[in-house]
Amino acid sequence: MFLTRLVYTSSVTDNFSPNDIENILEIARKNNQANNVTGMLCFNRKFFLQCLEGSRSKVNETYHSILNDNRHQRIIMLDYKEISARNFSEWSMGYMPESSLTSPVNIKFSGTPEFNPYEMSGESAHLMMLALKETIPSI
Amino acid sequence: MFLTRLVYTSSVTDNFSPNDIENILEIARKNNQANNVTGMLCFNRKFFLQCLEGSRSKVNETYHSILNDNRHQRIIMLDYKEISARNFSEWSMGYMPESSLTSPVNIKFSGTPEFNPYEMSGESAHLMMLALKETIPSI
Amino acid sequence: MFLTRLVYTSSVTDNFSPNDIENILEIARKNNQANNVTGMLCFNRKFFLQCLEGSRSKVNETYHSILNDNRHQRIIMLDYKEISARNFSEWSMGYMPESSLTSPVNIKFSGTPEFNPYEMSGESAHLMMLALKETIPSI
Amino acid sequence: MFLTRLVYTSSVTDNFSPNDIENILEIARKNNQANNVTGMLCFNRKFFLQCLEGSRSKVNETYHSILNDNRHQRIIMLDYKEISARNFSEWSMGYMPESSLTSPVNIKFSGTPEFNPYEMSGESAHLMMLALKETIPSI
Amino acid sequence: MFLTRLVYTSSVTDNFSPNDIENILEIARKNNQANNVTGMLCFNRKFFLQCLEGSRSKVNETYHSILNDNRHQRIIMLDYKEISARNFSEWSMGYMPESSLTSPVNIKFSGTPEFNPYEMSGESAHLMMLALKETIPSI
Amino acid sequence: MFLTRLVYTSSVTDNFSPNDIENILEIARKNNQANNVTGMLCFNRKFFLQCLEGSRSKVNETYHSILNDNRHQRIIMLDYKEISARNFSEWSMGYMPESSLTSPVNIKFSGTPEFNPYEMSGESAHLMMLALKETIPSI
Amino acid sequence: MFLTRLVYTSSVTDNFSPNDIENILEIARKNNQANNVTGMLCFNRKFFLQCLEGSRSKVNETYHSILNDNRHQRIIMLDYKEISARNFSEWSMGYMPESSLTSPVNIKFSGTPEFNPYEMSGESAHLMMLALKETIPSI
Amino acid sequence: MFLTRLVYTSSVTDNFSPNDIENILEIARKNNQANNVTGMLCFNRKFFLQCLEGSRSKVNETYHSILNDNRHQRIIMLDYKEISARNFSEWSMGYMPESSLTSPVNIKFSGTPEFNPYEMSGESAHLMMLALKETIPSI
Amino acid sequence: MFLTRLVYTSSVTDNFSPNDIENILEIARKNNQANNVTGMLCFNRKFFLQCLEGSRSKVNETYHSILNDNRHQRIIMLDYKEISARNFSEWSMGYMPESSLTSPVNIKFSGTPEFNPYEMSGESAHLMMLALKETIPSI
Amino acid sequence: MFLTRLVYTSSVTDNFSPNDIENILEIARKNNQANNVTGMLCFNRKFFLQCLEGSRSKVNETYHSILNDNRHQRIIMLDYKEISARNFSEWSMGYMPESSLTSPVNIKFSGTPEFNPYEMSGESAHLMMLALKETIPSI
Ligand SMILES: Cc1cc2nc3c(=O)[nH]c(=O)nc-3n(C[C@H](O)[C@H](O)[C@H](O)COP(=O)(O)O)c2cc1C
Ligand SMILES: Cc1cc2nc3c(=O)[nH]c(=O)nc-3n(C[C@H](O)[C@H](O)[C@H](O)COP(=O)(O)O)c2cc1C
Ligand SMILES: Cc1cc2nc3c(=O)[nH]c(=O)nc-3n(C[C@H](O)[C@H](O)[C@H](O)COP(=O)(O)O)c2cc1C
Ligand SMILES: Cc1cc2nc3c(=O)[nH]c(=O)nc-3n(C[C@H](O)[C@H](O)[C@H](O)COP(=O)(O)O)c2cc1C
Ligand SMILES: Cc1cc2nc3c(=O)[nH]c(=O)nc-3n(C[C@H](O)[C@H](O)[C@H](O)COP(=O)(O)O)c2cc1C
Ligand SMILES: Cc1cc2nc3c(=O)[nH]c(=O)nc-3n(C[C@H](O)[C@H](O)[C@H](O)COP(=O)(O)O)c2cc1C
Ligand SMILES: Cc1cc2nc3c(=O)[nH]c(=O)nc-3n(C[C@H](O)[C@H](O)[C@H](O)COP(=O)(O)O)c2cc1C
Ligand SMILES: Cc1cc2nc3c(=O)[nH]c(=O)nc-3n(C[C@H](O)[C@H](O)[C@H](O)COP(=O)(O)O)c2cc1C
Ligand SMILES: Cc1cc2nc3c(=O)[nH]c(=O)nc-3n(C[C@H](O)[C@H](O)[C@H](O)COP(=O)(O)O)c2cc1C
Ligand SMILES: Cc1cc2nc3c(=O)[nH]c(=O)nc-3n(C[C@H](O)[C@H](O)[C@H](O)COP(=O)(O)O)c2cc1C
Repeated sequence: MFLTRLVYTSSVTDNFSPNDIENILEIARKNNQANNVTGMLCFNRKFFLQCLEGSRSKVNETYHSILNDNRHQRIIMLDYKEISARNFSEWSMGYMPESSLTSPVNIKFSGTPEFNPYEMSGESAHLMMLALKETIPSI
Repeated sequence: MFLTRLVYTSSVTDNFSPNDIENILEIARKNNQANNVTGMLCFNRKFFLQCLEGSRSKVNETYHSILNDNRHQRIIMLDYKEISARNFSEWSMGYMPESSLTSPVNIKFSGTPEFNPYEMSGESAHLMMLALKETIPSI
Repeated sequence: MFLTRLVYTSSVTDNFSPNDIENILEIARKNNQANNVTGMLCFNRKFFLQCLEGSRSKVNETYHSILNDNRHQRIIMLDYKEISARNFSEWSMGYMPESSLTSPVNIKFSGTPEFNPYEMSGESAHLMMLALKETIPSI
Repeated sequence: MFLTRLVYTSSVTDNFSPNDIENILEIARKNNQANNVTGMLCFNRKFFLQCLEGSRSKVNETYHSILNDNRHQRIIMLDYKEISARNFSEWSMGYMPESSLTSPVNIKFSGTPEFNPYEMSGESAHLMMLALKETIPSI
Repeated sequence: MFLTRLVYTSSVTDNFSPNDIENILEIARKNNQANNVTGMLCFNRKFFLQCLEGSRSKVNETYHSILNDNRHQRIIMLDYKEISARNFSEWSMGYMPESSLTSPVNIKFSGTPEFNPYEMSGESAHLMMLALKETIPSI
Repeated sequence: MFLTRLVYTSSVTDNFSPNDIENILEIARKNNQANNVTGMLCFNRKFFLQCLEGSRSKVNETYHSILNDNRHQRIIMLDYKEISARNFSEWSMGYMPESSLTSPVNIKFSGTPEFNPYEMSGESAHLMMLALKETIPSI
Repeated sequence: MFLTRLVYTSSVTDNFSPNDIENILEIARKNNQANNVTGMLCFNRKFFLQCLEGSRSKVNETYHSILNDNRHQRIIMLDYKEISARNFSEWSMGYMPESSLTSPVNIKFSGTPEFNPYEMSGESAHLMMLALKETIPSI
Repeated sequence: MFLTRLVYTSSVTDNFSPNDIENILEIARKNNQANNVTGMLCFNRKFFLQCLEGSRSKVNETYHSILNDNRHQRIIMLDYKEISARNFSEWSMGYMPESSLTSPVNIKFSGTPEFNPYEMSGESAHLMMLALKETIPSI
Repeated sequence: MFLTRLVYTSSVTDNFSPNDIENILEIARKNNQANNVTGMLCFNRKFFLQCLEGSRSKVNETYHSILNDNRHQRIIMLDYKEISARNFSEWSMGYMPESSLTSPVNIKFSGTPEFNPYEMSGESAHLMMLALKETIPSI
Repeated sequence: MFLTRLVYTSSVTDNFSPNDIENILEIARKNNQANNVTGMLCFNRKFFLQCLEGSRSKVNETYHSILNDNRHQRIIMLDYKEISARNFSEWSMGYMPESSLTSPVNIKFSGTPEFNPYEMSGESAHLMMLALKETIPSI
């Protein structure tokens, strides 16, 4: 078994409605708990930035389900790596809502104060998720 | 633009028929040339091992098409990385047929003389593709 | 003399009965004290994860006795290394009972919240034993 | 997008009048906020030392505007680098007035107690700006 | 004196006419020889990629002249560094014409077989210029 | 699957008779081929030094069978490691007979011109097996 | 002058009587002070472990006197190195009596809870002396 | 400009009289302030150990004046290096009188409890000056 | 004894006449042979660049004589280091006359095709002397 | 067993007569062969420089015999280290006579063209013995 971390970003589609986020987190936490996947999801109504940690097969499986979800599109992986220990093991899916994705955090790790992970390197994206974890309590 | 490398493995499904490989290579080379994706495909009638190199967005797009292809399944990423230079830039999709995936090469980088990339670490898989490139002319 | 560390995992057999653990620890501590072997044993009724530290010859001797013990099977080494100092020198055999092998610890270093060292790399297994030592008093 | 840092130094011209600094900071902060550029400006009535952080294109654009400003001349870049995180993300343009550019700080990183960045290596200049940020509140 | 290397890319404007390249190289070589600047210029009728090496002040001066040249625009620095030895010391301005900027070279270091340095990291751009120098005689 | 290398040494017992070596190699090659284990065996009528490479589970299984073989005793592991590629992949079990274990080779990596791996560190033992492979054709 | 550290171990002979230790320390401190040698002596009635620091010539001279002392034998050097700063500069000869050489310390750095430096690597021996210095006041 | 550090040692001559030290410090501080040289001088009535930091040209100039001063002789450089930041920037010439050059400090970094920098490596000398700065207030 | 390397540059004075170079080399070789100093001298009628290797004391002594020679001035050290082996051990003083200090060599390691070591970092100067040694036979 | 290397230097005494060298080599080779010690001896009628390789105990034993030999004195260790492979395994005691210790070799690694190992660092001495081995056939 290879313990693995995957970070990707994506964009909401018209199929996404505001209350879907509750729904996504619920299903994500339920499935991830079943699959022993952990991680964090950042969302600002437009873009998602998500980290998935777990066994290589479960991380890939989960990612495939997510890729087929028509509530988002333009899904781009930023980081993928074999790891020895998880960073978000306490969360089946931690959530960073828009209010947490403040200008100071965004601008520190990217080109804009807006949350736009498409423009980030894999390393910047991973560092930002660790910084968010440090400073902001998850819901 | 982030130049990126992705390595994955997968398994043929019942939808796959022997002559599909010609077809896959043809479409792969056509699309990849259009998308400026390069790489190498290894195939032993059962498993695929493929390396895709190119811009982050095109590598992801190509990977998404591939993920949705019902001629294979159990698709698992082994390696994904930002790079400064490609390894397979001369091939829009180099091909290593079963005859190239000899026991000596397989067993050097994995647990078996059979070609079974599911059991390989990302580093072993990448090293094996480089070794294959060194020793075997592509079709 | 080469100071050495060995980490392995194994599974209980039908020959194992719940109170055998007392017995194993008693004999382990008695023998290890005689052999100057130190270490830690983790057990969740199904799997063992054990670290043995000491002289190369005594660690191997002890491991051979353990390999021949019919109360467990599927014994797989995860880590083995020449070291300059021990990590568990204060314990002839520290014990981490099931209650210590909590989901948070397991999932941080492996693919599942269950304790399943077969699926761990040598480095993950060693890191988890160090983390367990830090947080949990031994019996 | 490549997150980038640029450090340069320059000298006032006769076109520069004392109250221009207010003006420069105002326009700099306005433009930089629009361009998501952050940084710090040091000024001692004679020389400027400025750090610009942001996307590669915006940092270059901003630098071009600055190069064409006839209030300064002899503009020399000291440092330019792709980075993963900014150092001055909280400031659209932090300001270190002459009173902050004390002899102790100047002499620690350069050949003189006067502020003269022309004589500094890129590394010394970057280290000095970090030291200034640590010790002195910006206006 | 700090020996320095600068790499930038730019795009021709309408002010540029085909025979300007002769003219640019002539003036570049004349000026650079006077300023002890060396380097290499790549050009494919659309984009320039240029490396300038020399003293920090002369590299900056030369870059400022180049920035003000209305025959090109969208000038973006890719790399800038203090160095101990030059890479292109034998050329006051080596030239890689379109015929040298072949698909194989371009695609090895970037996302496309077309020459488009805007999409390259500083490291890829520098590696490509070194590769071009190895394989292609300058005019 | 973790690709793994194990190196151990052992001593013949009274149960061992000269022609057993043929027998051991035959069974070793047969089993190892079945288990996809590769490696090299050195033997000087007194001591064995063996390297086993393969999947973690098969290397351990093979080692367990070997440990229970009453033709040798005092079995001590010298080296055990997760690897990315094998060193002896061309041999299901290469053989270095006494005639290959010459004084010059032995003394270069150990304390004596006699072959006595008990006195070697893991690193010396591994380096000696690589040196033997370089210089001596296997039977 | 090369500042140097030497660590050796040795065993008492029949010529050694319990009160010799006072005598050895007295003469050692007197001579070492004269020779600007510093260090630490560990003794458990059976074995000595001593560290000598000082100029290369004085450390060698002192070691030669010690080698010729018939109160001990089987003198084996464990570590010898050019250093930039001493570790025991405050002691002309610090003393760790048997009571300080506790089982926990011994077993952490060696194969046994008894004090037996013959079985230690140079690195383990040096680490143990540093650990002893940290935890135990010298007499 | 290259920021530089020079460390040398020397010996008083008969031309030196006890109160010259006041005089040397006075002139050193006056000149160094003018030349933006900083550093520390250690003196034990017999030997000097001095560190000079500043621009390469001023450090060399100052060193030349010092070399021609007939109050000392046997002037030997111990260390000379391009640096990014000074260590003694707060002192135009800090002074460590004999009382600061205690046996414990001397013996830690050299072969003797006496202050004798001639016998020190460049690294030991630099480390000792940093240690002196840490522990002892300058006059 | 510390084996040491010193590199400096200097400028001729009016006291220098063309045939002095013969004289300098003669005396240098005579003295250096006596002092076991080796090295290389580069000269272009205006500037000297010299490397001196040998014992720390002899290198310093030689440098002091050289500093007091009124045939040159503005003497600036570029590099000074403890070394394990010399680079110019075959030459008591190798000589690189003006004809060897060609534009290509000068410009590779400095800002100008003229020989002007004042403008070089210590590392550039040392690299240039090694390059000169490789390509040009000494007189 | 720890494989170890020891390098020391010493000086002949009046007890040494020219033909003793034959005698020393004879006894050295006889004893070393028995003790599995290998190495090289350099001798210029005044000084010895010897490297001894072998098990830690045999190297120490041999060194003790050598220390007690009244044909030499002022015996100073230069280097002592645990190693994984020997450098002189083909020689029970290689010999470099005075004729091999030429000025060019001596001066490359020390302060003088004479052979004087007392003035060498451990690293210089070891590098010189390797260089001698490369260039000069042993007797
Ligand atoms: C942005 C986003 C993140 C998601 N994260 C997860 C996740 O971490 N785990 C998960 O199982 N499903 C996640 N989903 C939901 C999946 O896309 C999919 O709806 C779900 O796995 C379907 O589960 P089911 O097949 O059990 O109905 C996510 C969806 C979106 C749009
Ligand atoms: C093993 C495998 C490898 C493939 N590799 C590529 C590839 O490198 N590039 C590509 O465009 N399509 C590749 N394909 C084909 C895609 O799955 C898909 O059929 C194709 O991109 C569809 O292209 P279209 O949408 O233009 O019809 C591959 C398919 C398989 C099964
Ligand atoms: C999971 C497990 C861990 C054990 N750990 C040790 C141990 O650390 N040391 C030990 O001597 N025996 C250990 N044993 C017991 C040995 O397998 C064996 O019973 C014991 O060494 C026999 O000792 P004896 O030969 O003195 O009767 C362990 C057994 C099991 C099942
Ligand atoms: C020392 C100095 C620093 C400046 N810094 C900035 C800056 O950080 N951002 C910026 O937009 N303009 C900066 N400026 C002002 C620009 O040179 C220019 O005046 C301004 O960008 C013009 O903006 P406009 O074209 O919107 O009028 C600076 C000018 C000087 C002299
Ligand atoms: C793509 C490009 C590259 C150039 N490279 C150089 C150069 O390396 N050196 C140079 O002096 N001028 C170069 N030039 C020309 C300058 O932009 C400018 O025309 C020239 O320095 C003006 O010189 P002048 O002021 O002496 O007339 C380049 C221009 C272009 C468009
Ligand atoms: C020194 C030595 C090396 C051996 N090496 C191997 C080996 O590499 N692979 C193997 O399967 N058996 C090896 N054997 C034989 C095993 O100990 C055992 O006899 C064999 O695996 C039994 O196989 P079986 O259970 O199929 O009869 C070795 C035995 C000895 C004494
Ligand atoms: C274990 C041991 C450690 C010793 N340590 C030192 C020492 O650190 N310094 C020293 O001068 N003598 C030491 N000695 C004593 C010397 O062996 C020797 O007796 C002493 O140097 C003789 O000094 P003298 O020649 O001045 O009488 C030690 C002796 C023993 C047995
Ligand atoms: C040990 C020692 C240290 C000195 N340190 C300095 C110094 O740091 N700076 C300095 O200018 N002069 C120093 N001097 C004094 C110079 O040798 C010389 O007297 C002085 O620079 C002459 O200055 P003047 O030419 O301005 O009279 C030192 C002298 C000695 C003996
Ligand atoms: C550029 C230059 C380089 C010199 N190099 C050396 C040298 O390497 N060794 C040397 O002894 N003298 C060298 N000299 C000469 C010394 O400056 C001085 O004249 C000489 O050491 C005086 O020797 P004397 O005291 O034996 O007469 C050099 C002089 C100059 C100008
Ligand atoms: C410079 C020198 C080097 C020596 N090298 C060795 C050596 O490598 N091995 C050795 O056994 N004896 C060596 N000897 C000889 C020993 O000092 C001593 O005479 C010898 O070991 C006595 O052996 P024995 O006790 O068997 O008579 C050397 C002697 C000298 C002077």
